[in-house]
Amino acid sequence: MSVSAVQPKPTIAISMGDPLGIGPEIIVKSLADESLRRRARFHIRGLSTALGVAARSANITPFWHGVPHDAPDAGLATRHDVLLLDYSELEGTAGSTPAPGPTRPGGVASFGFVVDSIGATQRPPADPWHADAIVTGPISKTSWRLAGHTQFPGHTELLAARFAAPRTAMLFIGPHLRVILATIHIPLMAVREALSAAKVLDAIELGHLACQRLGIGSARIAVCGLNPHAGEGGLMGDDETRLISPAIAQARARSIDARGPFPADTVFLAAAAGQYDLVVAMYHDQGLIPVKLLDRNEAVNVTVGLPTIRTSPAHGTAFDIAGQNRADAGSMRAAIELALRMAGPAPMLR
Amino acid sequence: MSVSAVQPKPTIAISMGDPLGIGPEIIVKSLADESLRRRARFHIRGLSTALGVAARSANITPFWHGVPHDAPDAGLATRHDVLLLDYSELEGTAGSTPAPGPTRPGGVASFGFVVDSIGATQRPPADPWHADAIVTGPISKTSWRLAGHTQFPGHTELLAARFAAPRTAMLFIGPHLRVILATIHIPLMAVREALSAAKVLDAIELGHLACQRLGIGSARIAVCGLNPHAGEGGLMGDDETRLISPAIAQARARSIDARGPFPADTVFLAAAAGQYDLVVAMYHDQGLIPVKLLDRNEAVNVTVGLPTIRTSPAHGTAFDIAGQNRADAGSMRAAIELALRMAGPAPMLR
Repeated sequence: MSVSAVQPKPTIAISMGDPLGIGPEIIVKSLADESLRRRARFHIRGLSTALGVAARSANITPFWHGVPHDAPDAGLATRHDVLLLDYSELEGTAGSTPAPGPTRPGGVASFGFVVDSIGATQRPPADPWHADAIVTGPISKTSWRLAGHTQFPGHTELLAARFAAPRTAMLFIGPHLRVILATIHIPLMAVREALSAAKVLDAIELGHLACQRLGIGSARIAVCGLNPHAGEGGLMGDDETRLISPAIAQARARSIDARGPFPADTVFLAAAAGQYDLVVAMYHDQGLIPVKLLDRNEAVNVTVGLPTIRTSPAHGTAFDIAGQNRADAGSMRAAIELALRMAGPAPMLR
Repeated sequence: MSVSAVQPKPTIAISMGDPLGIGPEIIVKSLADESLRRRARFHIRGLSTALGVAARSANITPFWHGVPHDAPDAGLATRHDVLLLDYSELEGTAGSTPAPGPTRPGGVASFGFVVDSIGATQRPPADPWHADAIVTGPISKTSWRLAGHTQFPGHTELLAARFAAPRTAMLFIGPHLRVILATIHIPLMAVREALSAAKVLDAIELGHLACQRLGIGSARIAVCGLNPHAGEGGLMGDDETRLISPAIAQARARSIDARGPFPADTVFLAAAAGQYDLVVAMYHDQGLIPVKLLDRNEAVNVTVGLPTIRTSPAHGTAFDIAGQNRADAGSMRAAIELALRMAGPAPMLR
């Protein structure tokens, strides 16, 4: 008892994601590893039936203890290492029988799982439902829209709103690359309006802090240009001289080892070869194309700038292969591992 | 004599590129392979001294026959398989002694090599200086600008102008990917203005024709979206519904197997896995990031839409390693091989 009081296991909240996607399957497959289960407590918010179907399909013996998500007394339940907080009241509308695809019930359910997981991290540490980190299963933006949640294009924006976080960013971590995005889910042609030196500096700083949390004291940070050949000295665009170079200069003035702007078509090769610890990308596809090419099923998405840890697999619901026991759980497994690592004793990421 | 009349060797014009870059080195290293030299005649336009320095540095015995580029009588010279058409009058200004980097003399020289190589392909086939294809060594856009050639951001634009080609496109061919670009050397935020359904359709059609020339009868063509997640059904941008989908529909109406628009962060994985023969990218970095990540030193740049064949390595002058015998000639070698393959008996690429 005294040992566990000194080094208590962290509690990881896992939201199932869209019950009609591959979320249930990759959660079951990841936590089927007993050695992983022993390292933390897990509070999975989702549908018991969906998890059961996925386990049967993957020939995995159920390892979780189910309890209603609104159970009044948590005393007994929270002694289990893996709890399934069941939302059976949503069962009728978002059960496991409908065909995979975007649905309103899937949106209602997956939105609820995330919101309650966020709530768990906001409870006081002594609360039996408190969580130290959130790992989110993949949701469908279309399902969220069908469920009326049009104000949040994705998890990142919802988390930023719920925590009233002044600045957040999407960071991807894989075996070959760490990439942070200065802008995310907006039309490409809106990037210029969304981008500012302050925005680029935020991404550099948040990335720098995240690397510190991961044990990299002074990360070597490469910053991408926005234009072909990083503008080639102003020949193809002025965003580099107008915004990006000033942001890099400000970061360096704060003793952050940021360099660039570099042409985006070569900088990721240099980073993958070990020359940089982190690349700052200006827009979604600039960062995600290399992450998915090099780290496909092993990349983890981390939201930085929150008062808690949030990780998720870097892929989507994969409706096309859902329910077929064909999903690769590598990215979810890596997301859980990273949440465990980041939920350690280091100061909160701000 | 009768055999050579039936199947004459093609003549490949090679422009040296910037004499201060790695052009001389990668040309010497590629053609050091005698088996490659035997398959064609090569007319290298460049500086004899630069080629000689590169050969000595790489410990390669000179295999070429030097002749002034303006030699009046070509009768004897063109019997050699490898001719160096020497521009010694530019020697004083662009010799091999200056430090690598963008210079006005380097721009003057490299521009001249390309213009004269283009001229060679426009000579009648019976002319001793006629060339069937052009392989261009890397030039510096900054050197070109210093030399006053500001109207051409690069080779592709110069070639399009010299051939008065109504539509051209940059195609990249590597072991893992074939990628064609709908727009090229423009600021990213100018892409929307430059892009139209006609432009996307041009890229699809030119790519389709290029694949036919490479022996792929009906290429499976994947077309990228412009926005994150290919706009996710209009949630993040309307360019997909406004331009790209109509272009795909028009291509399909012309019996071209074009599909999409697909999210750019996953489509290249599918193409590299063999699901598509060609990817149409909407802008420079969208196409070049994956090409350079997957096919780094083996990718070849092909200009399609010209009445001749033009290939080049997919990399730049690499001034940082020029003159050090450290350059990888893989991409130049592949560019020469591809020019040979495409200069075959198939109809001209239009």
